[in-house]
Amino acid sequence: MQPHVEIFSQGEEVITGQTVDSNAAWLAQELVQMGFIVKRHTVVGDNLSDLKKLLKEISLRTDCCICTGGLGPTTDDLTAEAVAQAFDRSLSLDLVALQQIRAYFSARKRAMADTNSKQAFFPLGAERIDNEWGTAPGFALQENRCWFVFLPGVPVEMKAMFAEQIAFRLKQRFALQANQLVTLRSIGIGESDLQEKINTLSLPENVQLGFRAGADEVQTKLLFPAGADQRQVKNIVQQLVFCIGDYVFAVDGLNERQGGLVSVIDQLMQQQGLTLSVQETASQGLIAAKCIGHSWLLTSSFSQSLQQLSNKLNILFEPDASFKLAESIADKIQQQEGADLVLVQLYKGSIEQFQNKHQAIVIYNLLLTPEGIQRSEFNISGPQQRKQNQCALLALDLLRRYLQNKNSSERML
Amino acid sequence: MQPHVEIFSQGEEVITGQTVDSNAAWLAQELVQMGFIVKRHTVVGDNLSDLKKLLKEISLRTDCCICTGGLGPTTDDLTAEAVAQAFDRSLSLDLVALQQIRAYFSARKRAMADTNSKQAFFPLGAERIDNEWGTAPGFALQENRCWFVFLPGVPVEMKAMFAEQIAFRLKQRFALQANQLVTLRSIGIGESDLQEKINTLSLPENVQLGFRAGADEVQTKLLFPAGADQRQVKNIVQQLVFCIGDYVFAVDGLNERQGGLVSVIDQLMQQQGLTLSVQETASQGLIAAKCIGHSWLLTSSFSQSLQQLSNKLNILFEPDASFKLAESIADKIQQQEGADLVLVQLYKGSIEQFQNKHQAIVIYNLLLTPEGIQRSEFNISGPQQRKQNQCALLALDLLRRYLQNKNSSERML
Repeated sequence: MQPHVEIFSQGEEVITGQTVDSNAAWLAQELVQMGFIVKRHTVVGDNLSDLKKLLKEISLRTDCCICTGGLGPTTDDLTAEAVAQAFDRSLSLDLVALQQIRAYFSARKRAMADTNSKQAFFPLGAERIDNEWGTAPGFALQENRCWFVFLPGVPVEMKAMFAEQIAFRLKQRFALQANQLVTLRSIGIGESDLQEKINTLSLPENVQLGFRAGADEVQTKLLFPAGADQRQVKNIVQQLVFCIGDYVFAVDGLNERQGGLVSVIDQLMQQQGLTLSVQETASQGLIAAKCIGHSWLLTSSFSQSLQQLSNKLNILFEPDASFKLAESIADKIQQQEGADLVLVQLYKGSIEQFQNKHQAIVIYNLLLTPEGIQRSEFNISGPQQRKQNQCALLALDLLRRYLQNKNSSERML
Repeated sequence: MQPHVEIFSQGEEVITGQTVDSNAAWLAQELVQMGFIVKRHTVVGDNLSDLKKLLKEISLRTDCCICTGGLGPTTDDLTAEAVAQAFDRSLSLDLVALQQIRAYFSARKRAMADTNSKQAFFPLGAERIDNEWGTAPGFALQENRCWFVFLPGVPVEMKAMFAEQIAFRLKQRFALQANQLVTLRSIGIGESDLQEKINTLSLPENVQLGFRAGADEVQTKLLFPAGADQRQVKNIVQQLVFCIGDYVFAVDGLNERQGGLVSVIDQLMQQQGLTLSVQETASQGLIAAKCIGHSWLLTSSFSQSLQQLSNKLNILFEPDASFKLAESIADKIQQQEGADLVLVQLYKGSIEQFQNKHQAIVIYNLLLTPEGIQRSEFNISGPQQRKQNQCALLALDLLRRYLQNKNSSERML
């Protein structure tokens, strides 16, 4: 019998739609993978009587509830108060929590506002959940049938606390049999084309297939039942990778986690000891921004005008040339910066065309390497933020393909 | 007395977190603006008994409920069935709906699958809601206290049907008076410091104050009742802006929408006919990336090493200098690029310090302008993505302050 869990988000910004509740989706994925059945998500605003009513309902009908939001320092953050009133507990000061909040501010050389001390009061008998990432500690308690966990609503704090402090507590408290989720991460191919490529494959009945298209990648998800034979799992995954082809840049859930596109590139750049310089046009800084914290990126630059860039680099500006112009730019940058690899992205259209969501643009990517030149060319459409992001990703993907092909001894599976 | 509304989303992909429920946020915004109080969002999966239970609960406690999802042709789409069973109605074939579904397929020269006829069956007595954008018609019915509206979960269909068919029905059925939401958008100040600054201000009882801290800004929100006196609204907003000070970069909801930080900068750059070049360090391309689509950004560049950058620009690298080094860099870039304004961001620490979420970094921003030099200096802490984003925003904020001060005839209110 799988345990039931609910997810509960609190906050005016969520109930009024100012914020999309992405926390709930993230938590639901984690909880399904751990072996829970997720029964409900509920959102209410910062309203004491709504909160109390919901907490009582949940306490009677489910085994576990993960709650986010309402732990901030301001008067509209009411979670601890609502829990205390709903379940007839008093609020009591946790001195360790108060000490942690003080330390958070002193480490940042800032004065702690008086209102922050409110965050150290928990319902009597609750277990404190430390927060290393912000000022709001969480807490947990059992009430009627349900074990409640209260976490802050700030996604980065909530996710870190869940991963490092809640996951193992859930495994201790509940008899969970985790399903095995394997995720094939791909780029440069749409969801429906991807589905066409694999629709000849027949999967065993107990394996669930799903897709998720995000802004950065398309994921193909295989959910295997707990205890599935690992040779069979690997075999099915290999067939799937074969069908999709080298759009797949990473497979998560088999052995170690390979991660996102930049994380895959980072591993290969480090293994191969290479450095990179980038010239951006349409992505306007976003290629560099995505590589944050990686020292193999030596330099990057952006120019609004190709004419001006050509003048600065002292090369001939040929408006009709595409890859040829990109190659001249790459050569000059390599001379100036001395990087092993130079990635040049060329957009030759107008800024109006780029801004217009009804017009597609053409992008030329060129990668200068010690072994020669790699090229790719794409049509990209949609609103400008989508174009910018796709331009950055597809340029980085040219680099990823080069690094993975070169490193053919490094196998994905 | 404002009417209460709930939002209810159905589907396995939502409850398991494969899809983020952005429909709920969109609907909530629309409903709040129309004058409803949104009391709850609830998500359940494709499970008949969960659906029936929830429908009964909702019918007793709220005035209106907008439901999305579960209207598709497949066996796991259970909404009509659940409504019929929950409220003891039979399912009956709507011949007009069947005709519409057939027409949808024949217009696309596709055969209608048998399963699609299921979408023409509604609970007896329901009102059909036509869907011009897909195959699934919606329906509406009154049960106990609540008027239920059922719409498809596909966002484009749901939004079009809400806007064209539901909004006017809601206005007919409910006595709605739209509230006025004014949002003060600020940067460079935390939520608790902000609240300290305004806690001497006493607001009229019928004005609700709220806060929202996001990755890019802190918002102070004032919700005024429908028909509030506009002189009083403006007066309260002005007092609040005075208390918070020039951390406030925009006020939305008074006259036109001023928008985010880059949008405010864009308006001022265009009015004043200025151009910009940027040298980034810690933000690594993100300043440029945030200015996507704006032609006043002429060039930007990033260097991992200040030593290398100094060599390239042919200036003396002084490791101990901060603003002095930034000024030399700015001067050289202005000579090379010819922009009116040059924004230089200087980070002199190590990449390890930047990556370490427990270590704060110091950032020096310098803006070279025709009227002289503007400076700012910040301590920034947290995980590296947060540092990167804050570095980009605080550098841009130096530019925003310069432009707004210069343009003092351009008043915010």
